[in-house]
Amino acid sequence: MSLGRVILVGGGPGREDLLTLAAVSALKSADVVLFDRLAPHKHLAEMAPQAVLIDVGKTPGHHPIPQIEIERLMVAHAKQGSCVVRLKGGDPFVFGRGGEEVAACRTAGIDVQVIPGVTSAVAVPSAAGIPITQRDVSRIFTVVSGHAPLSENELRGLAGLAGTIVVLMGVSNMPQITQGLVRHGMPANTPMAVIERGYANDQRTLISTLGSIVYDAANAAVTSPAVIVIGEVVALANSEGAGAAQLIRESASHIPWE
Amino acid sequence: MSLGRVILVGGGPGREDLLTLAAVSALKSADVVLFDRLAPHKHLAEMAPQAVLIDVGKTPGHHPIPQIEIERLMVAHAKQGSCVVRLKGGDPFVFGRGGEEVAACRTAGIDVQVIPGVTSAVAVPSAAGIPITQRDVSRIFTVVSGHAPLSENELRGLAGLAGTIVVLMGVSNMPQITQGLVRHGMPANTPMAVIERGYANDQRTLISTLGSIVYDAANAAVTSPAVIVIGEVVALANSEGAGAAQLIRESASHIPWE
Repeated sequence: MSLGRVILVGGGPGREDLLTLAAVSALKSADVVLFDRLAPHKHLAEMAPQAVLIDVGKTPGHHPIPQIEIERLMVAHAKQGSCVVRLKGGDPFVFGRGGEEVAACRTAGIDVQVIPGVTSAVAVPSAAGIPITQRDVSRIFTVVSGHAPLSENELRGLAGLAGTIVVLMGVSNMPQITQGLVRHGMPANTPMAVIERGYANDQRTLISTLGSIVYDAANAAVTSPAVIVIGEVVALANSEGAGAAQLIRESASHIPWE
Repeated sequence: MSLGRVILVGGGPGREDLLTLAAVSALKSADVVLFDRLAPHKHLAEMAPQAVLIDVGKTPGHHPIPQIEIERLMVAHAKQGSCVVRLKGGDPFVFGRGGEEVAACRTAGIDVQVIPGVTSAVAVPSAAGIPITQRDVSRIFTVVSGHAPLSENELRGLAGLAGTIVVLMGVSNMPQITQGLVRHGMPANTPMAVIERGYANDQRTLISTLGSIVYDAANAAVTSPAVIVIGEVVALANSEGAGAAQLIRESASHIPWE
């Protein structure tokens, strides 16, 4: 029996039409699809008609199938000759543990390829009308995982850069992150946004400031998944200017190009 | 006559199959397409069959059509009732002047939407086998425009973060950037890569170190467009380890999923 192969596919921020043509083509030829909860998966049965679909349901803080078991499944199916698509939310190399999955395949002698995807770090702010860079406002942006608390070096470096900061998986560590940035000199009135469920029909954006957002997010009952954006570009999201926390409910009709 | 509209479309790093389904659909319905040189444009006549195609040829340091004229064209065609697609390389909000183009449309009262794209900042390293984040190596990455020299604050902040640094449009400022990072304490032996013409058939990757890459890039005659990656993740690109500058020529067959 000949060996199969593994294709790591970036599924983008969740909307099916933000899949790439290469992703669609990989799904079409897949024998097995291992998919995450944040990847677009509602119509996988039609998109990957020959495939066995396995929900490995990886969301932050909740791993129904441990990472090592995901890698074992991926390699085992490929060894049986299958074309295995590992469909991930966003891009496979942006906190997606894609590098570890590539390494697991290489160690097992399995051919592995990576199809990049639209990363939520850039696209979700965009869905809320926030450009992460803007001439004369920000020509630098940093993307950080907020899954664990940030180190003092990280907080100091971020405060010093004075560019846009995007935090993924950071809702529960928002107090540590915002207090740390202020302690290292970032102004408490720096604009800040939390975008919940980017590109979903119930996408919601909370706009506030570095100093007030923890209080405002508690009032608004903000939950994961959410993308956090800190920096002057947040002020470009609307023309009403700053002030009290602004909660913008975006219905499907406000989401771009619908 | 009713007003038309503008759709800013992220075209991804240049390969046509890295266009999203939403991008393909926008092109299909376009009456006018204004495209950049780094956007995928070889088969635009088939992809946008009804459209007038206008090459605005924006590459770093070379603007055949000034930005203000691009914005004027975009608005003028929309005012005539056309569906105008502004096709950009990468993502419209990652140094793409997308924010300015959105503002120009809003000022003119034109409906404008943004379709995010696969950003070269993440995808081009991936094409060279470099994951920009990796568990236990880097959980933070910064993307900066190297079009102008970096400020002392930026260099100090980047050196302090100790995460992955991605520089776009930075080939000509590489001496200033590398010397500045070393001066602010980043080790001269930090792995560094320059990936020229990501995803093209003649994609080429130079792997060296922060201290040596300027010399090595001159020897290898590195030119724009290129994506620069600095950080420990560069060492994951291959297993041969560091040493002298490694020049890897990647033919089409080495590019992922071909």
